[in-house]
Amino acid sequence: MTDEVGAQRTKVQQIADDLKAAIERGDYGPGDRLPGENALAAQYGVASLTARRALKVLSTEGLVESKKGAGARVLSFRPIRRRGIPRVASGQWGSGRSIWSADDHRAPDVDQITVDEDAAPPEHVRDVLELGPDETACVRSRRYVLEGRPVMLAASYLPQALVAGSPITQADTGPGGIYARLADLGHAPTRFREEIRVRLPTADEAARLSIPTDRSVIKLARTAFDADGRAVEINEMTLDSAAYVLDYEFDA
Amino acid sequence: MTDEVGAQRTKVQQIADDLKAAIERGDYGPGDRLPGENALAAQYGVASLTARRALKVLSTEGLVESKKGAGARVLSFRPIRRRGIPRVASGQWGSGRSIWSADDHRAPDVDQITVDEDAAPPEHVRDVLELGPDETACVRSRRYVLEGRPVMLAASYLPQALVAGSPITQADTGPGGIYARLADLGHAPTRFREEIRVRLPTADEAARLSIPTDRSVIKLARTAFDADGRAVEINEMTLDSAAYVLDYEFDA
Repeated sequence: MTDEVGAQRTKVQQIADDLKAAIERGDYGPGDRLPGENALAAQYGVASLTARRALKVLSTEGLVESKKGAGARVLSFRPIRRRGIPRVASGQWGSGRSIWSADDHRAPDVDQITVDEDAAPPEHVRDVLELGPDETACVRSRRYVLEGRPVMLAASYLPQALVAGSPITQADTGPGGIYARLADLGHAPTRFREEIRVRLPTADEAARLSIPTDRSVIKLARTAFDADGRAVEINEMTLDSAAYVLDYEFDA
Repeated sequence: MTDEVGAQRTKVQQIADDLKAAIERGDYGPGDRLPGENALAAQYGVASLTARRALKVLSTEGLVESKKGAGARVLSFRPIRRRGIPRVASGQWGSGRSIWSADDHRAPDVDQITVDEDAAPPEHVRDVLELGPDETACVRSRRYVLEGRPVMLAASYLPQALVAGSPITQADTGPGGIYARLADLGHAPTRFREEIRVRLPTADEAARLSIPTDRSVIKLARTAFDADGRAVEINEMTLDSAAYVLDYEFDA
């Protein structure tokens, strides 16, 4: 990139960094309007396009909502804290304070669910579930919303031969959900693996999550193993990166 | 957004999704050149700007490197697998296959390190370390590189009063590193908490990691607690999101 483009990008980020710090300090609270692009342009001595791009960084990150004519308003949504490992003896450790502020007490609800009892899973799922070339999977696809906002997509894959005829193939799996039903079948999960990566959303993911196409998603694949070490379920989750703080606590 | 802008964005993503799928299938291997923007524009019946934006999605995600005149070449860099929890009895679980291909065997090296024995930490660090208003922290800042590519920044904060005069205040902390030295001081870490969120990089983070300003970073804060439940270290890491797969394995 040329020096001029580089300098302009740095300016965009500096303005964005300043605005984010001001929000973090509480100078602007939920519902407050940030300075407009003309005010910012004058304040920093930059073109209004540069100021507009700085404001766009904040809307990409989900910190503000920009509406034509109304400027950028600070959003009140607090990220959801997702604990990967069930918490034990929580009060015992340190101040109990977290690095990042997030909501411990709300859980999103399922607003869309489809079950395909007999589907051909993607290759990487087939590999991890150790399915033969003719074997299929039961796929449970859900969308989760919080305060009307879609925050996560999830697709669970289970070996079709293992779960055929069980409530796992129904929309409502009953009390305790999939893991309780796997226990009923003699395959209670005893160990989990969570793999996490970050990338831009596909067209379908951006549409279903209603997020800007330049906001990253967190891909979180959770594999459940039974006591024999067999992979019995893979849950591939797609999280709006602005909506979550992930949290893992474990002994040394 | 207007329907026209929306339709164009969707087209950008569809082309990007197709190219990513082709790379995943192996149609294009490391070093191969993707079709240029004119070829893609003709193939999809879109403007060349649309095709250019699709190629930019791939360079933002770190899948290709774009050079003027040379087009977009597929990169060979494999993400690093970072295990949050030390692995036990690895062979025992399932096929041993992971959802995402990543490198288990390479670890990045430190290429920059600075130690400030007596610094005023940010407020959220002060809170979690339970430092009084006059107390300070020892801050160890490092940058990690792999194959010459910066992949992670890390800043460790430890209570100054706890570590003053110990090798923790030196660039070289000796065998076993910070945790072994905390053990020498009678504060061996016995429990860890890792908190993860994703956001766009600050100007400084993008510059130090040499990443595009529109590629997200993973913020990973690891807090170490001693046997008394006291927070003795916070390591705030900033990861190039294209360079890492995070991995957590634990019992149900």
